[in-house]
Amino acid sequence: MTSVELVEVGPRDGLQNEQTLLSVDEKVELITRAVDAGVRRIEAVSFVNPKRVPQMAGAEEVMAAVPRRSDVSYIGLVLNRRGLDRAVTAGVDEVNAVVVSTEEFSRRNQGCSVAEGISAAIDVVRDARAAGMRTTVTVATAFGCPFSGEVEVDWIRQIVADLVDGAAPDEIALADTIGVGVPAQVRALSAAATASAPGIAQRWHFHNTRNTGYANALTALDTGAHALDASIGGFGGCPFAPAATGNIASEDLLYALDRSEVSTGVDMAGLIDAAQWLGGALDKAVPALLGRAGGFPTRP
Amino acid sequence: MTSVELVEVGPRDGLQNEQTLLSVDEKVELITRAVDAGVRRIEAVSFVNPKRVPQMAGAEEVMAAVPRRSDVSYIGLVLNRRGLDRAVTAGVDEVNAVVVSTEEFSRRNQGCSVAEGISAAIDVVRDARAAGMRTTVTVATAFGCPFSGEVEVDWIRQIVADLVDGAAPDEIALADTIGVGVPAQVRALSAAATASAPGIAQRWHFHNTRNTGYANALTALDTGAHALDASIGGFGGCPFAPAATGNIASEDLLYALDRSEVSTGVDMAGLIDAAQWLGGALDKAVPALLGRAGGFPTRP
Repeated sequence: MTSVELVEVGPRDGLQNEQTLLSVDEKVELITRAVDAGVRRIEAVSFVNPKRVPQMAGAEEVMAAVPRRSDVSYIGLVLNRRGLDRAVTAGVDEVNAVVVSTEEFSRRNQGCSVAEGISAAIDVVRDARAAGMRTTVTVATAFGCPFSGEVEVDWIRQIVADLVDGAAPDEIALADTIGVGVPAQVRALSAAATASAPGIAQRWHFHNTRNTGYANALTALDTGAHALDASIGGFGGCPFAPAATGNIASEDLLYALDRSEVSTGVDMAGLIDAAQWLGGALDKAVPALLGRAGGFPTRP
Repeated sequence: MTSVELVEVGPRDGLQNEQTLLSVDEKVELITRAVDAGVRRIEAVSFVNPKRVPQMAGAEEVMAAVPRRSDVSYIGLVLNRRGLDRAVTAGVDEVNAVVVSTEEFSRRNQGCSVAEGISAAIDVVRDARAAGMRTTVTVATAFGCPFSGEVEVDWIRQIVADLVDGAAPDEIALADTIGVGVPAQVRALSAAATASAPGIAQRWHFHNTRNTGYANALTALDTGAHALDASIGGFGGCPFAPAATGNIASEDLLYALDRSEVSTGVDMAGLIDAAQWLGGALDKAVPALLGRAGGFPTRP
């Protein structure tokens, strides 16, 4: 593996659990900074109900103002038909549908059962494809659930198989939503996803809640990951672990990738500057370490 | 790999860069808490000059007061003959000699060249073995140096070969002293050490300065690591990156090992309690994440 897509999810997952609400202008600045740093896939917005998730309000205004370039792909999170209609109107390049793999979490987060979630995701993928958009389905809580604990790999394999049978998305993303995973699970889940969805790109979404996120990301790379999610500065807490850190940080992941000679096309200095700026906008310390520690020392 | 030795280095590397000086009683409490949590190898003291490293003062008093058990092995860090004499008198079970692999760091930290450091470590190992002690040599800055940058794997291979030729320590520890390493380096260094020192146990020492420490530790396990260093709470800053985090945290490493079904004999709750206590003694927030995030969720 000599290259991987770094998907910047800071504008979506990085912000959606923060108490401070960014303005449309601030969201656009974050996205623009990511583009300027060389990121070419950005989960920019979420078409959920802004009354339920006020952090994600203004998705249409954000998409109207971000720099549009042929080499940059913007992803919108979409949970249902209403969200897809908004995504089409707003002009995102891709949609990311979400299936929560565990019943209690699915009911609380999506307001539906797992089976209903799978069915909804299949509908979103079919309709998005018909609208000319690239499609991903994220399988959330794939590594463990705050309510039901262990999640069987075979259960995830079955969900992926159902998604492929129903709509064959361009990409399957496996998400460690609450940051409990370890590399052995990455290997098992990658094998399961490959068995159910051979030839479909694998994307991974990790949180560093228990300091396993970077190990998981690098392991996913070894198993053939096509894309890795990360968030500028490592913002993005987990509502189920309020004191915990968030997504793996884009700049810290980039450090590991750069030092492993895995190319991403992304510039470290731009990410660190963006994280510093975002920390100011959120009035929070930056969780990522690279800005504090500095890069690999160069001989004077 | 279904088991690994977890070497608690909190009392030594965890404290030696902290501004707050712990009393002998506090150091003994930290060590006792580690023993009570099931840790069976502890780098308890350093026989360096207490005028140079006041954090490590009172080594003899600490060793006189720690719980002595046949199943617990205490390691003392030893840089020279004077230190070894103190280690023998204090009654440590093992010595850890250190060779810094890069010239400038060696001169600043050890006051000698790399060649002189190798020679001193060989003397320490021979004399310690003659005194009936288990011996380790740690090769510091093996993943990179704050002054000279890149460190060639072949250079580390040569240092290990010299150490084996000179004194064949029981164990070689490879240290990412400034927290710059990535898993690819772990694999390369493990192969080099195995080539130079076949059959000699490999121990690894990682800092999480740039969020790669846990990935490195889990990779070392895959390459056949016999022992992994970690520090309760993840204390232990790096003097060359003042704002950076320290050693990988014992409890966070244990979480990853437990979830990977790698047995250590160590109890999570005891480590988390000890970290909380140590944070109080040092008047610092605990860098480790497990105490904040909680363990893997259990079904209610």
